[in-house]
Amino acid sequence: MSSSFRGLRVLVTGGLGFIGSNLARRLLALDAGQIVLVDSLIPEYGGTLFNINGIEKDVTVNVADVRDEYSMRQLVRDKDVLFNLAGQTSHLDSMSDPYTDLEINCRAQLSILESCRRNNPAIRIVYASTRQIYGRPESLPVDERHRLQPTDVNGINKMAAESYHILYSSVYGIRASALRLTNTYGPRMRIKDARQTFLGVWIRNLLRGEDIPIYGDGSQLRDFNYVDDAVDALLAAALSDKAVGEVFNLGAAPPLSLKELAELLIKLHESGHSTFLPFPEERRAIDIGDYYADFSKAVRRLGWQPRIAPAQGLKRTLDFYREFGEHYV
Amino acid sequence: MSSSFRGLRVLVTGGLGFIGSNLARRLLALDAGQIVLVDSLIPEYGGTLFNINGIEKDVTVNVADVRDEYSMRQLVRDKDVLFNLAGQTSHLDSMSDPYTDLEINCRAQLSILESCRRNNPAIRIVYASTRQIYGRPESLPVDERHRLQPTDVNGINKMAAESYHILYSSVYGIRASALRLTNTYGPRMRIKDARQTFLGVWIRNLLRGEDIPIYGDGSQLRDFNYVDDAVDALLAAALSDKAVGEVFNLGAAPPLSLKELAELLIKLHESGHSTFLPFPEERRAIDIGDYYADFSKAVRRLGWQPRIAPAQGLKRTLDFYREFGEHYV
Repeated sequence: MSSSFRGLRVLVTGGLGFIGSNLARRLLALDAGQIVLVDSLIPEYGGTLFNINGIEKDVTVNVADVRDEYSMRQLVRDKDVLFNLAGQTSHLDSMSDPYTDLEINCRAQLSILESCRRNNPAIRIVYASTRQIYGRPESLPVDERHRLQPTDVNGINKMAAESYHILYSSVYGIRASALRLTNTYGPRMRIKDARQTFLGVWIRNLLRGEDIPIYGDGSQLRDFNYVDDAVDALLAAALSDKAVGEVFNLGAAPPLSLKELAELLIKLHESGHSTFLPFPEERRAIDIGDYYADFSKAVRRLGWQPRIAPAQGLKRTLDFYREFGEHYV
Repeated sequence: MSSSFRGLRVLVTGGLGFIGSNLARRLLALDAGQIVLVDSLIPEYGGTLFNINGIEKDVTVNVADVRDEYSMRQLVRDKDVLFNLAGQTSHLDSMSDPYTDLEINCRAQLSILESCRRNNPAIRIVYASTRQIYGRPESLPVDERHRLQPTDVNGINKMAAESYHILYSSVYGIRASALRLTNTYGPRMRIKDARQTFLGVWIRNLLRGEDIPIYGDGSQLRDFNYVDDAVDALLAAALSDKAVGEVFNLGAAPPLSLKELAELLIKLHESGHSTFLPFPEERRAIDIGDYYADFSKAVRRLGWQPRIAPAQGLKRTLDFYREFGEHYV
């Protein structure tokens, strides 16, 4: 992989967000020819200019909304690879305002794909899908053939968007693939609220000396990927011909319970407390119980493996927010 | 069932269309208290005023587009039952104009559900979904747990819309269910083109003395429901508490090959020819091969059975278009 991105022109939607900005840093290290980061910088979403602190000169920022069809048409035109990461990610926001979620997660995705098909059919696309589309697992671990039964509007719309990508691959020959990301964490994630991941709020609270809030009894199992591992998978999917038209779970083994995760954070921070809270009603309605992925397809076809253990990844994350946390709250 | 609809206020979206207008006639016979038919009468879709020929005085026609959020908000307010049949149905149109398909099949459905949840949460809803959301079957017969892998934008958007209905049932307690209709045929279907069903064009051609066009070798298997049987299922789903939050396949056994179907039509008409044509490229890309449903869940839970055999249903259909065909071409 070390030389494969050299000279390539890369577009990243959601490029100032958590995963997009970490991906941009890696692309820079891999000597990509052009790195264009598209982001709307809407305050409720994950994008912030501080995420490219130190690399501002080496990337091109294009402030635009993926719903802006004409801008996107221009931006995809001359690119070799599109990492399509922009999205509305909040489950609760999707329930209170389903239309905005539909516009961003469905309509904008259709228009990006239409632009690629008409103006740049040779582009490679990797779409950031989510384990949320499975809904409440019927069996564990969850592989890619598990039934899709999302428990919120966000999950339904992401399911549709993933399907558009695979459809445009099979019908029009666009070389698109999709990764179903699980809980991803690390430097540059949103921590001011739980819109991106509950882990953001946990880390914010821990560093402030406030309790880590655990809904329910903390026995719920989840798998967690450190962001560098997710970036590895995105790069591998963009390069591999075996990825085209395919969807891949990401994941990590073994899963952790939320209680274990809180304990690990407190241990790494050498102080802190957690508190068990009853599920708020609107969260209970869309909760999915235990989840962890079978990610063996990504191992087999992409040669991908998560490499950063939770203790290591969480330590790096805590270090980052101790130093730069003021820019994220 | 004979007395269960007496006095009920019923709203039918797509009410001037093929299935909606047949449903309206049945509701009238069942003495429903109010029958409001919403239809946009867009020429490319299935609605036409001739479909309520003879019952105009007994139903209320409200010309409106389901995308018209404010009109829909008023219309759902005081109803007991909503049969939600409006939709863009053309697979090819969904590929050439994916945005319109999205507006009708996703955004409008969300806004109808939002209106019900806010203004009339006690309403019963039956949504007309489609076997198209399964895509190319992986095993036959296809039951409701079969993987959803639609082969066109229309199928993806209908999948999302069905999911919204089930979601609003589980999260908000809206009493919604969905029927995955298979090929439905009968009086009042669109025959001027294949936007609704290929069978329309077959019947039109047969009655004009033109060849019935069969794509491929005619060996593809399908199941067919006469429209009265589909109406039976819609009514049963609206009444049964066992339907709430559930999806049901419709279907018929045994399946027929397209070649057998053409032969049956020609036999019933006592003249006619079919011709085998190569698949047009845009149809081949979204073709699904053989399909027939396992509809035992509807039998078990709704007490539904298709009752009209193909020979009988097709004869009635031919009789109808011999008499009224001029209004449909």
